[in-house]
Amino acid sequence: MALHPFDEALALEPADGGWRGHTSPKWANMVGPFGGLTAAVLLRAVESHPDRVGEPVALTVNFAAPVADGVFDISARVVRTNRSNQHWLVELTQDGIVKTNATAVFATRRDTWADTEVRAPDVPAPDAVAAPDGPPLVEWISNFDLRYVDGGVPAPDAGPEPSSVTTLWVRDRRDRPLDFPALTALSDIFYPRVFLRRGAVAPAGTVSMTVYFHADGAALDAVGADFVLARGQANRFARGHFDQSAALWSRRGELLVSTHQLVYFKD
Amino acid sequence: MALHPFDEALALEPADGGWRGHTSPKWANMVGPFGGLTAAVLLRAVESHPDRVGEPVALTVNFAAPVADGVFDISARVVRTNRSNQHWLVELTQDGIVKTNATAVFATRRDTWADTEVRAPDVPAPDAVAAPDGPPLVEWISNFDLRYVDGGVPAPDAGPEPSSVTTLWVRDRRDRPLDFPALTALSDIFYPRVFLRRGAVAPAGTVSMTVYFHADGAALDAVGADFVLARGQANRFARGHFDQSAALWSRRGELLVSTHQLVYFKD
Repeated sequence: MALHPFDEALALEPADGGWRGHTSPKWANMVGPFGGLTAAVLLRAVESHPDRVGEPVALTVNFAAPVADGVFDISARVVRTNRSNQHWLVELTQDGIVKTNATAVFATRRDTWADTEVRAPDVPAPDAVAAPDGPPLVEWISNFDLRYVDGGVPAPDAGPEPSSVTTLWVRDRRDRPLDFPALTALSDIFYPRVFLRRGAVAPAGTVSMTVYFHADGAALDAVGADFVLARGQANRFARGHFDQSAALWSRRGELLVSTHQLVYFKD
Repeated sequence: MALHPFDEALALEPADGGWRGHTSPKWANMVGPFGGLTAAVLLRAVESHPDRVGEPVALTVNFAAPVADGVFDISARVVRTNRSNQHWLVELTQDGIVKTNATAVFATRRDTWADTEVRAPDVPAPDAVAAPDGPPLVEWISNFDLRYVDGGVPAPDAGPEPSSVTTLWVRDRRDRPLDFPALTALSDIFYPRVFLRRGAVAPAGTVSMTVYFHADGAALDAVGADFVLARGQANRFARGHFDQSAALWSRRGELLVSTHQLVYFKD
């Protein structure tokens, strides 16, 4: 039986004290692979490490250079193991050149007082929202079932919009259950906010991305392959960069992650 | 003439191909130095590097272990220099053990289309807001002039609050003009959000912190030593961690940074 395209892209084999993987055409972006996938592969490398303790709570991925099609190597180093958390440094290289690096914090979760302040917006159920017409902008989008509640990809004749908010339901098109790498990829599901504001596609790419994982493994198991609600917005566009803050919730309204990124753009 | 306490704490001298610095009692936190100061020192190390190009646009600092009082060493390595940006990896060690690490992205800013979506809240001017009574919780607070508009530090008899929002005006108490290290330190100006929600001080510490710099050097020069408006809020508290999202604006309403952190807490 063929592997699911996400599992195929996450497949790593031990090599030179680290791991070796390869890019996959199903995850192609405008240049190189979808950044959310690369982030997921880096997280998977830490998850696979025999010294790993606990579950991810924070991940920052820096996109230093485009990943070329083909083979890549990943090294993951434990920076520090504390009583309840563990710090990691991860690098993805091709021919010895760093293309992406990441820092990750894993932790053993404990029961504590809990509360959520950022509530899911009140939106129609995913089945009541149409899937987009026409072919996707880039290949990797085809791996997901997207239902834009607002702020969909601008049509060729779109004009500027006053807000960069996009809200969508999203799930794996082939019913793969949610895990931490999949949640990492979903954290990068938004097309560049500048497209929406300007009403046009233009060069843009994520420079650095951070994910804070609020959900634990049991919460992800409860979501399974169901839709997740995603909402993202830019805070400021200025002098060649903008930032985006986003959140992902389960259908039941559990905040799964809050995630932020800085994006380079041209106009 | 004595150095300003911030400049004294930022002072680095070349050592072993990196830099050597030392902690300063004026920046003491509950355990080790104020995290915002440590983040500022790491940024300063990159700024001081002869190969540095441009200004900071993104910084992530991971607090792996408490910095002990005394000497520390910093290494800063260029990961990649692109046409318009540069990626850095920075480590602070004591006796060869990594206490803090960071990734930073510097960039050459270009004129582009610009807009701000997250507006400064409408609040009273700083002179109309009283400074807090009584001694600060920790020593480093004494370096700042703080004016809490809402969400001040809970009094000993405080009860729980329904919101973790804190809004304050803040400036350097000795009129030191704003620069990128100072802006980095201000990004960590908020006391732990869990204190406000629970109405009590309890063990808590930042695990990872990210700053996106929207302001360029000219914008910081325009702020000078004036008050900056800071607002922060937690998104979710769950199983031993919470996240905080915050923004800093100039008095004129320019969004200077958006900043996020993940914090460990006990209850």
